[in-house]
Amino acid sequence: MKHNFGAGPGILPQQVLQEAAQAVINFNNSGLSILEISHRSPDFEAVMDEARALVKELLNLGDNYSVMFLHGGASSQFAMLPYNLLGENETAAYLDSGTWANKAIKEAKFFGKVNVVASSKESNYTFIPKDYEIPKDARYFHVTSNNTIYGTQIHQFPESPVPLVSDMSSDIFSREFDANKFGLIYAGAQKNMGPAGVALVIVRNDLVGTVERAIPSMFNYKLHIENGSMYNTPPVFAVYVSMLTLRWVKAQGGIKAMEKINNEKAAKLYAEIDRNTLFKGTCAVEDRSRMNVCFVMNSPEQEKEFLNFAKERDCVGLKGHRSVGGFRASIYNALPLSSVEHLVKAMQDFEKIGSSKPELSMK
Amino acid sequence: MKHNFGAGPGILPQQVLQEAAQAVINFNNSGLSILEISHRSPDFEAVMDEARALVKELLNLGDNYSVMFLHGGASSQFAMLPYNLLGENETAAYLDSGTWANKAIKEAKFFGKVNVVASSKESNYTFIPKDYEIPKDARYFHVTSNNTIYGTQIHQFPESPVPLVSDMSSDIFSREFDANKFGLIYAGAQKNMGPAGVALVIVRNDLVGTVERAIPSMFNYKLHIENGSMYNTPPVFAVYVSMLTLRWVKAQGGIKAMEKINNEKAAKLYAEIDRNTLFKGTCAVEDRSRMNVCFVMNSPEQEKEFLNFAKERDCVGLKGHRSVGGFRASIYNALPLSSVEHLVKAMQDFEKIGSSKPELSMK
Ligand SMILES: Cc1ncc(COP(=O)(O)O)c(C=O)c1O
Ligand SMILES: Cc1ncc(COP(=O)(O)O)c(C=O)c1O
Ligand SMILES: [Mg+2]
Ligand SMILES: [Mg+2]
Ligand SMILES: [Mg+2]
Ligand SMILES: [Mg+2]
Repeated sequence: MKHNFGAGPGILPQQVLQEAAQAVINFNNSGLSILEISHRSPDFEAVMDEARALVKELLNLGDNYSVMFLHGGASSQFAMLPYNLLGENETAAYLDSGTWANKAIKEAKFFGKVNVVASSKESNYTFIPKDYEIPKDARYFHVTSNNTIYGTQIHQFPESPVPLVSDMSSDIFSREFDANKFGLIYAGAQKNMGPAGVALVIVRNDLVGTVERAIPSMFNYKLHIENGSMYNTPPVFAVYVSMLTLRWVKAQGGIKAMEKINNEKAAKLYAEIDRNTLFKGTCAVEDRSRMNVCFVMNSPEQEKEFLNFAKERDCVGLKGHRSVGGFRASIYNALPLSSVEHLVKAMQDFEKIGSSKPELSMK
Repeated sequence: MKHNFGAGPGILPQQVLQEAAQAVINFNNSGLSILEISHRSPDFEAVMDEARALVKELLNLGDNYSVMFLHGGASSQFAMLPYNLLGENETAAYLDSGTWANKAIKEAKFFGKVNVVASSKESNYTFIPKDYEIPKDARYFHVTSNNTIYGTQIHQFPESPVPLVSDMSSDIFSREFDANKFGLIYAGAQKNMGPAGVALVIVRNDLVGTVERAIPSMFNYKLHIENGSMYNTPPVFAVYVSMLTLRWVKAQGGIKAMEKINNEKAAKLYAEIDRNTLFKGTCAVEDRSRMNVCFVMNSPEQEKEFLNFAKERDCVGLKGHRSVGGFRASIYNALPLSSVEHLVKAMQDFEKIGSSKPELSMK
């Protein structure tokens, strides 16, 4: 068994993979594959409806929100958000907390004005800026709830005088939060919700259709909402597997239960990083992500060695992003506690081997 | 065994479905699912490369073309095409041959001027307009090679003084044609190439980056080309299954072999429609599609009955689109000749039953 710490597309529950494989052969006992049925068939309409309902239920969303499953990944939302919400002469406020936040800012500038209220770029995004004011005349305020690359996470969302928008690609459904405080939430599926190829967009209805400009159909939230995410052929399989994953989250006890185990996983791993003489964390302790755990070695020349050591123990996907180096253990919902324990054991064993064989650390 | 005549998402080769299901459990013997691996992993990079190479090989594309696999389906291309190729004050020429052509026209108008050179809308799109002139100052000329809803197909592409662009969503890889005569070709995968969730875009390199406007990253062909269709996380599984399907096309003998059997399937079905006293075709004989075969009954009140009759014999997806009524048998690449023979037999048997039991036809 592999322990999959990849940052995304990331690990999915084994049970979901089994059901998905079955559906590729024979979906709902129809004698047809999920890959070759009409998206307008009652069987698939039911999948789409259930996926939408599960999002609403798991997040306790009020009736004033619409849920969409769209093509294009999270990156398309960097553009669709301002396309739909930001007038040419209006300003949107953004928090610059990482590479993805930065890309979101870049795309917003195609559509309107951007006010970056704070940035931790100068410190290589090792912390979440907290000392800022949100301009009251901004159209919305955009934050990245979890910075996948740098391993930081907003643990306390700001009170915002304007609609709060969040890219939650790498921590949606991983912890409790009040979704009804947000104007819009989006997430690529491929970390905590499903496979690559679909993005989730949740929007408060009063924000839709407020901008002046003409919007081409496929970029227009209003049309997607009116058509139940079937304005065109949706990414059928990605929606199906997302629905199965959401069912799985619910069966585990919902987000409350996910948060509990995620906290336990993160606590164990950070404790070992701090305790172990070979490793150290890369970012501000108070902003540490409970989804993407970034760490390095005190002796960087040992990192390759540890990566191989871990790989021999079936820990994969641990290599850190080039912007940070070292290691990144993504511990998404589907990653079991036992995988974290397995990694912690590897770190401990490596420490022992390292100290008993001093020549190793001098390589 | 079901005989899947659905218009799309449509039938895929059985062998592809088996391989796809296996990869959902264990991809390339990696111990990981294709749904939970990094798109930057060497194993997936190889899939993307092979998919691109197969498109180039099957279509005999010159080195002056780029091949992209993009999110968003064919409908996103209705907008991305003019976003990238049509300046605000420039004109693009379009042929209005069906519902999809019409939607492409509508989206182009968000970006520039549109000259509809001819339309068969007044005749409910029962034929392909042929009497038109392509303006020499148009930025490009857009046609829909196969009209999925109306069952018409361009059998002879026009000589165009400007770059020829085609939506080939429902007949790409089904017949031989000179792809090097086109400026741009696009197709949603879910008919002849793979599952829903990815679109193929082929563009002649000199057409890219020629427009003045600023283009947001996810809508920008140039960026997608430069990044090998990995500007963001691609729809990994849809690309993989498309690659498997393209491999299958190649193994069948390539497009030449596909065309031969597709022609045979179409000829058999149209022959029966013409011969059978109960059925008749809906569109101009010379424009009949070899992918989507549209037909009705001389006594429309029998149609529901025949649909049930066919369904009892495991023929599914035969209901015609509401714009045409009656039946539509989509006979895409993956549909075996035996399925067409099975349908023909059903039509013959229904004719016999109908004539021996006159009360049936009076219901
Ligand atoms: C926080 C965050 N936002 C956006 C993205 C981009 O997502 P996509 O590749 O689906 O466009 C990522 C991808 O890793 C991410 O982690
Ligand atoms: C010819 C043609 N073009 C475009 C489309 C739209 O494709 P999509 O649903 O992928 O946007 C279709 C869908 O059936 C089609 O048949
Ligand atoms: Mg980041
Ligand atoms: Mg330490
Ligand atoms: Mg049509
Ligand atoms: Mg007849």
